[in-house]
Amino acid sequence: MQIGFAGLGNMGFAMAANLVKAGHAVRGWNRSKEPVARLVALGASEAATPAEVAQAGMLVTMLADDAATRSILEEGGALDALKPGSVHICMATVSVAFAKKMAARHAEKGIGYVAAPVLGRVNVAEAGQLNILAAGEASLIERVQPLFDVMGQKTWRFGAEPERANAVKLATNFMIVSAIETMAEASAMVAGHGVVPADFLQMATSTSFAAPVYKIYGEAMMQQRFEPAGFKLSLALKDVRLALEAAEAAQAPMPFASTLKDNLIDGVAHGDGNLDLAALSKVAARRAGRG
Amino acid sequence: MQIGFAGLGNMGFAMAANLVKAGHAVRGWNRSKEPVARLVALGASEAATPAEVAQAGMLVTMLADDAATRSILEEGGALDALKPGSVHICMATVSVAFAKKMAARHAEKGIGYVAAPVLGRVNVAEAGQLNILAAGEASLIERVQPLFDVMGQKTWRFGAEPERANAVKLATNFMIVSAIETMAEASAMVAGHGVVPADFLQMATSTSFAAPVYKIYGEAMMQQRFEPAGFKLSLALKDVRLALEAAEAAQAPMPFASTLKDNLIDGVAHGDGNLDLAALSKVAARRAGRG
Amino acid sequence: MQIGFAGLGNMGFAMAANLVKAGHAVRGWNRSKEPVARLVALGASEAATPAEVAQAGMLVTMLADDAATRSILEEGGALDALKPGSVHICMATVSVAFAKKMAARHAEKGIGYVAAPVLGRVNVAEAGQLNILAAGEASLIERVQPLFDVMGQKTWRFGAEPERANAVKLATNFMIVSAIETMAEASAMVAGHGVVPADFLQMATSTSFAAPVYKIYGEAMMQQRFEPAGFKLSLALKDVRLALEAAEAAQAPMPFASTLKDNLIDGVAHGDGNLDLAALSKVAARRAGRG
Amino acid sequence: MQIGFAGLGNMGFAMAANLVKAGHAVRGWNRSKEPVARLVALGASEAATPAEVAQAGMLVTMLADDAATRSILEEGGALDALKPGSVHICMATVSVAFAKKMAARHAEKGIGYVAAPVLGRVNVAEAGQLNILAAGEASLIERVQPLFDVMGQKTWRFGAEPERANAVKLATNFMIVSAIETMAEASAMVAGHGVVPADFLQMATSTSFAAPVYKIYGEAMMQQRFEPAGFKLSLALKDVRLALEAAEAAQAPMPFASTLKDNLIDGVAHGDGNLDLAALSKVAARRAGRG
Repeated sequence: MQIGFAGLGNMGFAMAANLVKAGHAVRGWNRSKEPVARLVALGASEAATPAEVAQAGMLVTMLADDAATRSILEEGGALDALKPGSVHICMATVSVAFAKKMAARHAEKGIGYVAAPVLGRVNVAEAGQLNILAAGEASLIERVQPLFDVMGQKTWRFGAEPERANAVKLATNFMIVSAIETMAEASAMVAGHGVVPADFLQMATSTSFAAPVYKIYGEAMMQQRFEPAGFKLSLALKDVRLALEAAEAAQAPMPFASTLKDNLIDGVAHGDGNLDLAALSKVAARRAGRG
Repeated sequence: MQIGFAGLGNMGFAMAANLVKAGHAVRGWNRSKEPVARLVALGASEAATPAEVAQAGMLVTMLADDAATRSILEEGGALDALKPGSVHICMATVSVAFAKKMAARHAEKGIGYVAAPVLGRVNVAEAGQLNILAAGEASLIERVQPLFDVMGQKTWRFGAEPERANAVKLATNFMIVSAIETMAEASAMVAGHGVVPADFLQMATSTSFAAPVYKIYGEAMMQQRFEPAGFKLSLALKDVRLALEAAEAAQAPMPFASTLKDNLIDGVAHGDGNLDLAALSKVAARRAGRG
Repeated sequence: MQIGFAGLGNMGFAMAANLVKAGHAVRGWNRSKEPVARLVALGASEAATPAEVAQAGMLVTMLADDAATRSILEEGGALDALKPGSVHICMATVSVAFAKKMAARHAEKGIGYVAAPVLGRVNVAEAGQLNILAAGEASLIERVQPLFDVMGQKTWRFGAEPERANAVKLATNFMIVSAIETMAEASAMVAGHGVVPADFLQMATSTSFAAPVYKIYGEAMMQQRFEPAGFKLSLALKDVRLALEAAEAAQAPMPFASTLKDNLIDGVAHGDGNLDLAALSKVAARRAGRG
Repeated sequence: MQIGFAGLGNMGFAMAANLVKAGHAVRGWNRSKEPVARLVALGASEAATPAEVAQAGMLVTMLADDAATRSILEEGGALDALKPGSVHICMATVSVAFAKKMAARHAEKGIGYVAAPVLGRVNVAEAGQLNILAAGEASLIERVQPLFDVMGQKTWRFGAEPERANAVKLATNFMIVSAIETMAEASAMVAGHGVVPADFLQMATSTSFAAPVYKIYGEAMMQQRFEPAGFKLSLALKDVRLALEAAEAAQAPMPFASTLKDNLIDGVAHGDGNLDLAALSKVAARRAGRG
């Protein structure tokens, strides 16, 4: 298949590379050129502009956020370059409102729009083992399923309205950030009774909470090692904000998400926005006078 | 070993039965007599009163809460009946303040006090696979370790002050209740965007949250089946209250725990105190106008 | 002075009418024409378009929100029609981010921009007794002070950056909504102990809380009379959202504001968005099982 | 009337002194003897023990909390010394649960029990201008009304169950602490946009919030003067905790109160428990990185 792939950050590169290795004709675009060169070295070709990357008839975007995605689609000209009948698969973690607007804009132009954000870190993407959360017209998803099968271990479908997949992705990220916060608060409490937080976390993440999310962030807390960041605290703040916006649109109170936002802001205000999300434990400890 | 065992509810019975099967001379006491008879049928003997159950030199208590434990120790006479040099292992989920006070009372009388609350539901207790959270003087714990080895798969030690084990147990239960709340809020949000909550939960508990806690309660939410209760909502409220009391004593703010308490009260106010904790999803849905 | 006045809702009309009565040459514009006719009857002239209203050299806008203000400035052509050296006084409750952007846009064109949101309901506006929260270059504020003296009893100045006045206005509205929430929660609590909420509110608003904010909304709660709305619950939600956005930009956690947003969403989800803000008492009562 | 008065702290002394000045035969008791001597100098007599102070047939208690009140009633022997037909007016801020239990204990012994906590600081008490929140059997309140008329400007009655007056008092204190928190959060937010918090508070407490509660605490915030404490932060924490306990008993979620408790704990954890409640502004500022 001819595929344009825009957004070759760590995640995007791993996904695009797997498409190349699976024999697809991938044309890559990225704002900085270094990852494009690496992809070309694997057998891809280069798109000089967002408009060029959109000409393949099948466009995958994996950009940082709403603004970056909007930028290549509008200012960059990708949306105008997409031909009627082509498909755009937006795999980034964008807002529900943005997905809704994009779906409408694409429909007006006769272009298919599929939302397909993913679960999994870079190593999972490299292994082609992502979980793909997809929504869009059934016929479109059928069409792009072969690509999903290359990039992921499983595709979870959530219906015809693309923004549903984004709601699900944001809800999942909310759950991840919440899990970190619960370890942070629990650690601050037991510390106040003389328990070494690492002893507590070792136990909790080996018993009731023996799941990857808890183990990975729990380990970072135990070692007080917040760099390099697997998931930056400031990006978690962005995702929680998007979850809250989606919640307001859905008229659903989310008090845990509201609390998370305040605590993440507290972390950012103390200069920890670039640390790993596990640094939420610093916020809880500081509030307990153990900062 | 001669062991008195007070509190033969579902958990206590399973634990005491394992001690009997392992060849220990167990003397059982319970407020209602039916489980005592069942334990006697396995080879145990019966203690007619709390005072009698305390004469074995090694007393295990597994009662509902502070009040029930205090009742057999004080009004019931168990504390007076314990001989100097004997050991009392309190395995119930009691408050940090109660554990502290009990430890002091026992010390005054020259009686050992070990706090050893457990992680695991009834089937885990039956299989002798509990995780045991223990704190108390090292020599005392060594002495009772053979009993822990019968009842549990692993003993986690948290130091010499007994109340530390209770702080750890309450922190862990707080994390469990929080996990349920995150599923409840996330489900209410995606539902507002047209996603079937069960579809979302199926995905989440199969991917990032493939841990027993999420799977068990997630399954109850998916099926909207809240009876029989594995962990009653009203008891979760009690545990969260105790966690907050422990947090205040430790001068640690716990905003998630505070939110949980309010939401659990909301559930109780709507008549759902006897339902399974998974019914927190009803609170979140109701607040979103989907009750 | 020649003044263009755009936005003749209840508040805007009262303010513009006072300017006319004070002898200023006011040219009025409004989306619907009825209030324009009423203003003309008082001696004003009519502007047919936003571009026309901006030609006076002094433009006052008092529109519903960011979107309405942006609409007349951009699509409506008012910004292009403003001549270099003229002044635009934005008196609406708009967002801090919008004020910042507008200030920059106006500066580029050599047009003065003053932010001057107001405190006071319609009857206060009619009496020319508003409190005006102003920010902008000192020389500009001096220039428009005569207008403020007509519309308000006092002008509070907050410095040269216009958005500061908006931050102050949103902070004040946040305090108002918070005051209502405290009455709602307190009433739900005492009701659970058999106290008639109106008896409690009567006492509280006559003693420690004998301030207009508490008296006005407390009276509505006592009588359970939420229509007509003095301050719509859905608009309070908008203002709290803007306060939270301003807080995030300022890296300031605002846990009360976060809680307010969730409770206001709860109210909207139950169909009460068009009721008076005092209907927050319905949310608190419902959560306590007294809905 | 013959009156025993126990608890001669700043508030109690002012109230008892007014009773003496009004011609009542007051017998005073206090743990430390200095205020008793001062009261005797005004014409009162001294009670050597709690049992002695209870012999007057009319006992007023104004002690620090549940524990202090229980201590003189039980260990101190005051309850046993009260004769059938006598009345005990408990004017302290005690818990709802304590009031309920006390009412029952007194009833068993044929002693009247009136709950009558008060609103007003020391200067208000000295002026005999307190607001008295009273509950108890109507005939009892009639009997003690002459005393209330001496100590207060107005008595607000809340029915026959004494604990209702305590619920109302705790609800009112919750509203006071909430008012402080709203100023703290609002100040932290505007500060992040360059507004001097004192400028904001000056405006807010002169306009929409021109009520004593806001003015008094707002003034302390403006001057960053938190000593001497008018209302200690640690005592506010106690009152908010009691309000939350009353709320749980009433099955009423109180999310603002929950947030307050966490923020007050944050303040105490940073060593500010003995400062004035206005120091909540330090918590909000610190969380915003401006500590």
